[in-house]
Amino acid sequence: MKAAYYHGNRTIRIGESIRRPPGPDEVRLNVAYCGVCGTDLHIFRGGMDKRVAIPQVIGHEMAGEIAEVGANVKGWAAGERVVVRPLASCGTCPACCAGHAHICYNLKFLGIDTPGAFQSSWTAPAHTLHRLPPGFSLDQAALIEPIAVACHDVRLGMVKSGEEVVVIGGGPIGLLIALVAAQIGARVLISEVNPFRLKLAREFGLEAVNPKETDLADFVGKRSGGAGADVVFEVSGSAAGAATMTQLVRARGRIVIVAIFAEMPKVDLFSFFWRELHLLGARVYEPEDFEEAISLAARGILPLTRLISDRRPLSDLQTVFEQIEASTDLMKVLIDTQGE
Amino acid sequence: MKAAYYHGNRTIRIGESIRRPPGPDEVRLNVAYCGVCGTDLHIFRGGMDKRVAIPQVIGHEMAGEIAEVGANVKGWAAGERVVVRPLASCGTCPACCAGHAHICYNLKFLGIDTPGAFQSSWTAPAHTLHRLPPGFSLDQAALIEPIAVACHDVRLGMVKSGEEVVVIGGGPIGLLIALVAAQIGARVLISEVNPFRLKLAREFGLEAVNPKETDLADFVGKRSGGAGADVVFEVSGSAAGAATMTQLVRARGRIVIVAIFAEMPKVDLFSFFWRELHLLGARVYEPEDFEEAISLAARGILPLTRLISDRRPLSDLQTVFEQIEASTDLMKVLIDTQGE
Repeated sequence: MKAAYYHGNRTIRIGESIRRPPGPDEVRLNVAYCGVCGTDLHIFRGGMDKRVAIPQVIGHEMAGEIAEVGANVKGWAAGERVVVRPLASCGTCPACCAGHAHICYNLKFLGIDTPGAFQSSWTAPAHTLHRLPPGFSLDQAALIEPIAVACHDVRLGMVKSGEEVVVIGGGPIGLLIALVAAQIGARVLISEVNPFRLKLAREFGLEAVNPKETDLADFVGKRSGGAGADVVFEVSGSAAGAATMTQLVRARGRIVIVAIFAEMPKVDLFSFFWRELHLLGARVYEPEDFEEAISLAARGILPLTRLISDRRPLSDLQTVFEQIEASTDLMKVLIDTQGE
Repeated sequence: MKAAYYHGNRTIRIGESIRRPPGPDEVRLNVAYCGVCGTDLHIFRGGMDKRVAIPQVIGHEMAGEIAEVGANVKGWAAGERVVVRPLASCGTCPACCAGHAHICYNLKFLGIDTPGAFQSSWTAPAHTLHRLPPGFSLDQAALIEPIAVACHDVRLGMVKSGEEVVVIGGGPIGLLIALVAAQIGARVLISEVNPFRLKLAREFGLEAVNPKETDLADFVGKRSGGAGADVVFEVSGSAAGAATMTQLVRARGRIVIVAIFAEMPKVDLFSFFWRELHLLGARVYEPEDFEEAISLAARGILPLTRLISDRRPLSDLQTVFEQIEASTDLMKVLIDTQGE
């Protein structure tokens, strides 16, 4: 029963997973797999030391099995296979009162603001659970959380069948957004500079271009008969992406900000005025996005096994972070939390 | 029958108003008044010399009377008092085909891309006309065009009764947006640095603060019980306004870009992500906005006479531009196009 603790200063150490009995409204889970997210890497690099209680177990892209059920928990039983929607909202702030609990003003993100799932035993609130269909493999289920992000983004972007969609940035989230939008029937184009990611996108049947080789605005203009794209997803978080996004959309088109912009880029607000563009931010997910993600994954139409670059034991987590930093050809690495 | 011609190089010269007979789908108008818009000043300063066919009569905030009616024109007669919605769209571009003719990709703005209304006789397409109610004064009617801008902005911002609204910038358009939003029942706050404009806003019964004296984010936070504003209108076009706007809105709140940003400001895209904010551009108006503006003005609930700072003859237009540039306490100046 091991756990990977973040100790600050780019250091992960393996310790014991503390088997905390569930409170009345909680369940204890045996974690099977937990994917490594960009946010985890950001924590590893020290970017979130103010929120993380060092030493702390992090990780939130998990799948596992219920081991124990708290006294008040109804509708869940030991042995059920589940994923966790890792959000705890306050219930009283203006966002919660307006029905937007996922962007609660006092939101706690499990695995950042509370202990996470890079461990074999994890105790979490029962209200965060989503049930997996029978036979759904737990390694693929560890991808449900990032798929739910993509489902949320595509839903808020109101993507419809036949629409022209451009995704700027072809990492795991960008690729998933492209796949979810394509599954709806949108004509999707990915803009990405990394050759490995370009190749993978094309292998998935998606159209993909390198904006360093192709004039993206010109390409999208021609592709859309001069109109511009209906929806652009900015997933790169780069100044170049922020500069390009306004050049791609049609009059009244939508731009969805998915990326976390660490710095404020320059944005062409004149184009927003001139073409009455819409920009909207999309963060995490709501319960329906998890249900949609599970449904999509269960139908077997997403190339999930190809998105998993590697499966590694807990004891490798330090090395995995270093490899992701150094690598240009890793998509999703899963940590086998039972493996040592 | 005089006209004021823009000759480039900050020069207005008075010449003859050419009484052009209406084409089959046009009307010839006797212009009564034409307001001086920020766009006219921008033209005077040389900022639109690529679009203006020098020497050209400019001006578009007009009110007047129909003098002659073209052969195909139905439903209009000489003697009727009207205003012109000064837009000519192509009818075939992607924006027109999508029902957004006011942001046509090939939009011609009458008075910029074609001759304008700083003259006593003006010939315009009949489809641009809106009828004034009986007895409506033609000086106040010259304000219909900027009121229609405000109606469009407030409509796209989906302002509802009881909502918290902040307007950044209290010039003519900002004030009109505030007045239109207040008339719907919104709780409106104006942010403005100019003491004359602050005083005028307060005389109109609007709450107004100087962001150089008051921490606007803090003020709006307290005013909204910690939630943030529902809608912010950015009408200043300043880097400071662009930096502040994201600090004022609640989760899922709306920011409407009304100003013309000549330079790309830095924008806090992280806040868009974090609070799922919406940003939308709003440009000119649609026919329903003109009808709403006429209806609002006719009900006498807008302090229109107080918005008119001065009435001047055509021959003063050069001086008026210079005075608007130098002044801090002019709102709307009307040109009496029959006066010499």
